[in-house]
Amino acid sequence: MTHQTDSQAGAAVKAADRAHVFHSWSAQELIDPLAVAGAEGSYFWDYDGNRYLDFASGLVYTNIGYQHPKVVAAIQEQAATLATFAPAFAVEARSEAARLIAEHTPGDLDKIFFTNGGADAIEHALRMARIHTGRPKVLSAYRSYHGGTQQAVNVTGDPRRWPSDTGTAGVVHFWAPYLYRSRFYAETEQQECERALEHLETTIAFEGPGTIAAIVLETIPGTAGIMVPPHGYLAGVRELCDKYGIVFVLDEVMAGFGRTGEWFAADLFEVTPDLMTFAKGVNSGYVPLGGVAISGKIAETFGKRPYPGGLTYSGHPLACAAAVATINVMAEEGVVANASVVGAQVIEPGLRELAARHPSVGDVRGVGMFWALELVKNRETREPLVPYNAAGEANAPMAAFAAAAKANGLWPFVNMNRTHVVPPCTITEAEAKEGLAALDTALSVADEYTA
Amino acid sequence: MTHQTDSQAGAAVKAADRAHVFHSWSAQELIDPLAVAGAEGSYFWDYDGNRYLDFASGLVYTNIGYQHPKVVAAIQEQAATLATFAPAFAVEARSEAARLIAEHTPGDLDKIFFTNGGADAIEHALRMARIHTGRPKVLSAYRSYHGGTQQAVNVTGDPRRWPSDTGTAGVVHFWAPYLYRSRFYAETEQQECERALEHLETTIAFEGPGTIAAIVLETIPGTAGIMVPPHGYLAGVRELCDKYGIVFVLDEVMAGFGRTGEWFAADLFEVTPDLMTFAKGVNSGYVPLGGVAISGKIAETFGKRPYPGGLTYSGHPLACAAAVATINVMAEEGVVANASVVGAQVIEPGLRELAARHPSVGDVRGVGMFWALELVKNRETREPLVPYNAAGEANAPMAAFAAAAKANGLWPFVNMNRTHVVPPCTITEAEAKEGLAALDTALSVADEYTA
Ligand SMILES: Cc1ncc(COP(=O)(O)O)c(C=O)c1O
Ligand SMILES: Cc1ncc(COP(=O)(O)O)c(C=O)c1O
Repeated sequence: MTHQTDSQAGAAVKAADRAHVFHSWSAQELIDPLAVAGAEGSYFWDYDGNRYLDFASGLVYTNIGYQHPKVVAAIQEQAATLATFAPAFAVEARSEAARLIAEHTPGDLDKIFFTNGGADAIEHALRMARIHTGRPKVLSAYRSYHGGTQQAVNVTGDPRRWPSDTGTAGVVHFWAPYLYRSRFYAETEQQECERALEHLETTIAFEGPGTIAAIVLETIPGTAGIMVPPHGYLAGVRELCDKYGIVFVLDEVMAGFGRTGEWFAADLFEVTPDLMTFAKGVNSGYVPLGGVAISGKIAETFGKRPYPGGLTYSGHPLACAAAVATINVMAEEGVVANASVVGAQVIEPGLRELAARHPSVGDVRGVGMFWALELVKNRETREPLVPYNAAGEANAPMAAFAAAAKANGLWPFVNMNRTHVVPPCTITEAEAKEGLAALDTALSVADEYTA
Repeated sequence: MTHQTDSQAGAAVKAADRAHVFHSWSAQELIDPLAVAGAEGSYFWDYDGNRYLDFASGLVYTNIGYQHPKVVAAIQEQAATLATFAPAFAVEARSEAARLIAEHTPGDLDKIFFTNGGADAIEHALRMARIHTGRPKVLSAYRSYHGGTQQAVNVTGDPRRWPSDTGTAGVVHFWAPYLYRSRFYAETEQQECERALEHLETTIAFEGPGTIAAIVLETIPGTAGIMVPPHGYLAGVRELCDKYGIVFVLDEVMAGFGRTGEWFAADLFEVTPDLMTFAKGVNSGYVPLGGVAISGKIAETFGKRPYPGGLTYSGHPLACAAAVATINVMAEEGVVANASVVGAQVIEPGLRELAARHPSVGDVRGVGMFWALELVKNRETREPLVPYNAAGEANAPMAAFAAAAKANGLWPFVNMNRTHVVPPCTITEAEAKEGLAALDTALSVADEYTA
């Protein structure tokens, strides 16, 4: 791949962006967005000839990498045939996408309600749960992210919730397992698991089991830190849900479609929720798409009685055609297995080796193509390299780390005191090694802030 | 256009749909979705050789008709170049779409926050208003629709809100002008206008001006019945907003991008809101896209302080490329003017002529390519042909009307006791006349239910 540089074109793109584009989660005058000229596979490049290995997969969604030719062709073909059609009709791409997704979802999650992304998938899942149970409350975890619309941000357990939270959303937050910073004074995974389940059951008891419509969890919390739950935790939550008649919602928006080396992270733990939300990997974000996979029991609730929710682009043909092509590509090209194999054979040992050498690395955790390094000032105290929700000067160590990675051709995913290693699931061994080498250099910069 | 029939393929599409697709706003076992094989311009067709003139524009969004070759080509080209990229970057299609949209929006609505559709546009607009003002409440109108996510459905003023409304959303509903069924005992448009403004100002006074973040209105309420507001109403709301420091949000998701024979319905009334939501027509729904156009004053609030909201697919390149092509096509091909001219010269006189002959037509109202016929049992009493929110047997007259339209090759938009005449803005005179003729036949069926 050689890329023409055209700094003037880049400057024009950037100027129009600064004049007219209002960016997500940002102080508009304090950002300086990089102008991107192109992308392919695991890489993207700017207009000045700089190429980056994308260890963030965009926002952890380009699971098949950029510009997969078969998915591009499928989009082009669907565009030529029937780009769009209203949701009340049966359309081939819509039917086939639903069928293929249902083929991969666990258990009897066989009815698919399509949305445009992850947030609206959560919105609709929670509505289904509330109406199915007739109960008002939803339990969700601190250290979670579920989306930017009102109800999705209400269940979110990170600071992005604060400005939109009125405390009247019928949402109660609890603590999920996270041994490295245990809220339960646990010393082993098993203890963390047992105590987290005790904590949840006590919370259910004091909130009132008959008031709780749903428990919603990311199967593996993503943006919040890729805390792989101890084996037994999700099965325990499943049991509690059954015991109290609560709908179990697993959010697989980030963890689903190959990210963990399985089709869904739920497969790792052999649990089947009642509702499962997805987006991102379903079509690698080539066209906006999300959805809810619905169990037979909940679908039945809306058999004779209308489901009171919808959207203009539900089951959008172009988005569904991209999903069909993506899922077929993933199956044909062994993308899920690749995430598992390169994850286990290159990424995991590579990260553990880096951790052994870099005092700034406090914890390494993950699975498949879904890893987090938690950076700390001090391994003994585990004090985070930057404080929770740090900005500006307080965030300087993480900013320096990120800058060093970029200077070495690696685009990292950075959140608070963590960097996540979440490249495309199609990454090659050589690319993974190239990224680990750049991380090595960047971690040396982080090391300078340890004490 | 000749279309092959392939009933077997249609049956397969339908079977997979019934097995796996969960549909918007529907009782899943009671629906029988038509399998659609293709579409072009103002028409679509099924697998059995039936062709329909689409007087609904899908869900009032295919403003340039189906499969416009230039927009299809732009999608194909963008797919080949850079189908997707994360929102924190500057990307050519994203910059250009924002620039073009800002070029057409009224006043200084020059910053564009992109969403995936209409509901999330409303969600984000209301968050911006609440944070900008530091106030909790939002005022919205009965007889309105703003979307299916939690906050969007809370501001909605139709029965779709009921199952999701807890009464704690900080939303207060008021009555907007609607002379045909005046809530203000008005007899003229001017009286309706004055009284609606008095009603609104009194409501503001009793809710507490200092508690109200925003007033949100569809510029012309769409799904609720295309009640074109009397001249002076929106200017009056603008004045009230200025007087009390309230953010004025106009929802142009349905009314925008040519539907009214202007780029935006706000142009008809020469008002500029502080925030304007859009979706649908922005790219005729070829790829999911929506957004909020933001005034300088509100953008400034998020200049140095982060806007606490976002989404993975904000400013999706493929969706933005479709918007760029759509807006250029609309300009080059005079689509907005066509909506105005065919609306004034064919649709309006045609509908008035039908109203004169069909006793079931109680009211005709609209502008451009945005018209409603209100069907009544009796013109004197104005009793609706079916009760508010009727279903099943109670809705039989409207079901019979719709069936008659379809049998005559016309796909109508039907909501409660109304049919909306909302074809693509690209419709030809001949197509408009063809549709009016089919409506004529279908109205004869509705007439049978009058008394
Ligand atoms: C687990 C999870 N749920 C929901 C969402 C929201 O998805 P979207 O940004 O498409 O609305 C995200 C986005 O990162 C996510 O990671
Ligand atoms: C005025 C208005 N606002 C918002 C929406 C919601 O848009 P979407 O269905 O894309 O979420 C609609 C949809 O019909 C609408 O007509």
